[in-house]
Amino acid sequence: MTEDNNKKALTDIASLGEFGLIDHLTKGIRLRHPETIAGIGDDAAVIDHGDHASIITKDLLIEGVHFDMIYTPLKHLGYKAITVNLSDVYAMNGEPRQVFVGIAISKRYSLEALEELYAGMLLACEKYQVDFAGGDTTTSPSGLMISITAVGRAAREDIVYRSGAKPMDLLFVSGNLGAAYCGQLVLQREKQAFKANPQMQPDISNYPYVLERQLKPEARQDIIHMLKEAGIKPTAMIDISDGLASEILHICKKSGTGATIYEEKIPVDQRMAQVAHEFNIDPTTCALSGGEDYELLFTIDQKDYDKIKDLEAVHPIGHITEAAQGHNLFTSSGQLVKLTAQGWDPWKK
Amino acid sequence: MTEDNNKKALTDIASLGEFGLIDHLTKGIRLRHPETIAGIGDDAAVIDHGDHASIITKDLLIEGVHFDMIYTPLKHLGYKAITVNLSDVYAMNGEPRQVFVGIAISKRYSLEALEELYAGMLLACEKYQVDFAGGDTTTSPSGLMISITAVGRAAREDIVYRSGAKPMDLLFVSGNLGAAYCGQLVLQREKQAFKANPQMQPDISNYPYVLERQLKPEARQDIIHMLKEAGIKPTAMIDISDGLASEILHICKKSGTGATIYEEKIPVDQRMAQVAHEFNIDPTTCALSGGEDYELLFTIDQKDYDKIKDLEAVHPIGHITEAAQGHNLFTSSGQLVKLTAQGWDPWKK
Repeated sequence: MTEDNNKKALTDIASLGEFGLIDHLTKGIRLRHPETIAGIGDDAAVIDHGDHASIITKDLLIEGVHFDMIYTPLKHLGYKAITVNLSDVYAMNGEPRQVFVGIAISKRYSLEALEELYAGMLLACEKYQVDFAGGDTTTSPSGLMISITAVGRAAREDIVYRSGAKPMDLLFVSGNLGAAYCGQLVLQREKQAFKANPQMQPDISNYPYVLERQLKPEARQDIIHMLKEAGIKPTAMIDISDGLASEILHICKKSGTGATIYEEKIPVDQRMAQVAHEFNIDPTTCALSGGEDYELLFTIDQKDYDKIKDLEAVHPIGHITEAAQGHNLFTSSGQLVKLTAQGWDPWKK
Repeated sequence: MTEDNNKKALTDIASLGEFGLIDHLTKGIRLRHPETIAGIGDDAAVIDHGDHASIITKDLLIEGVHFDMIYTPLKHLGYKAITVNLSDVYAMNGEPRQVFVGIAISKRYSLEALEELYAGMLLACEKYQVDFAGGDTTTSPSGLMISITAVGRAAREDIVYRSGAKPMDLLFVSGNLGAAYCGQLVLQREKQAFKANPQMQPDISNYPYVLERQLKPEARQDIIHMLKEAGIKPTAMIDISDGLASEILHICKKSGTGATIYEEKIPVDQRMAQVAHEFNIDPTTCALSGGEDYELLFTIDQKDYDKIKDLEAVHPIGHITEAAQGHNLFTSSGQLVKLTAQGWDPWKK
């Protein structure tokens, strides 16, 4: 009998928060094999093979936690399950090559539903040229759970960790931020409206951009290729799954640095800003804390500035500082405020 | 809205069975990268790295499907979650080196419960000398789900597939079979007794052997090492997770062969046979269809017989035949019966 009837003496898992929990559970872990170059603590683990290395990442997507079947088409879900894992491999500056898929699905789903899910996964494999190399499909007592392992490949010297940022490095971000979160706001509003009046058809045709960013995100393979062609190797990199602020703090923690970013430099799309205003939310808040953008956040040495300055897909948002200077946001109104991670935490849902 | 309200026109997933389902969903999959030597269809996938290869396997363990929290101590569960995945790597004749762990757990569990689960996983990592190299811990709406990816290493020429068996090869199995299933019978009986009368303390002290085989199975690293030392490379190999009959059929299907085994040669332990008799089940049925033994089933070329004949941990149970001869069991009473897979199927639970 292990589920705990007497909670008094026991500790609530949620009290540690997602990252606190992982730190707590994994703090005693030591790596034994010299080929395990990197384990827990980055976007992915790295295994050495001599002239190249494998990059391995694993993520869970749980119905009712990470997605809501009310508004998530299964084909989109399959596609997203793959791309968010590939994003972790790109964040290490590697090329994803294989995926392994574990699915636990309730018997209430039909075979046709499962086929849709697979179709989405295979579409992503086709687009990103990765092999669907294995997995496990089993039943679940309720709902759908997807576990993806993505395996990438890179020359060992090309791999970029979270830990390589140095004071004076420039902070860049790809694309624009906050749109995926705004897409979720729209979907949640329509879900509430539908629950209140099931006869009403949801009207989501006005929001194609933010909905696509939420339901069918892409991984930024193009950015990795573009930087390589420009002769730039980032000093540190991470993908933005939990919001810009949270990811900046991850890089700073691993690199032992501080950072300062400028609100006016944070790339936001007008279509996102419109939705944010509709919901009375500051677009900057969406960008800082919204998450699920799957853009890349990276730092480069100042000497590479000339190589990067004309690339339109990436935007300088600030710079790395000494740790003592802390983590700061210089607002558009001229204030300096502390950056805090308000990103999504599955334990606080 | 993807959960299916109108089931009439749709296909029940369970109608295909576990292996039929996987075949159906993965039949269109083509591998793109030459380094993906083997994908779906063996105990694990194989990725080439030049002088060596990675062996990658992935399994899900779902509460209420693969384990019952009423009688499964969390530390044992953690240990078993790791060993059953390592077993797949050994079944390819590789050495497991890293594991990646995904856990989705209900907030009803305490931090201390999660620590127990981790303690069991880390104990298995210590025993089998593998690195706990990464993972993901998140919340679930209900219950506990564990997804493990194990990564192994082997010289490319050492890897053993299911597909290499040839007519006249000898079939061997390690250890003894059926005990894990008998352990589960005992646990289920005590669960029923407890439900009928919660004041009653379960008495399971008479069954230490079968309970340990069920709750804390080991992976047969020792067999792989023993065969290597004896200079034997099996022609085909698989681990016994779904029962001996099912695994023999897997090897035959992949190798394009038949097989004949002899009931009197199937290794059973007296402690298992006693429990089987207590439950009025034929011990041979437990061995053929019980599953979860995590022993190794393998075939060797006849020329290797002299090298293996004195090894006590492995037992010859029959031989591989031409496909046309089918899959046969020669019973102790002298009858020849058809071998059928009656192994555990999560969809038919």
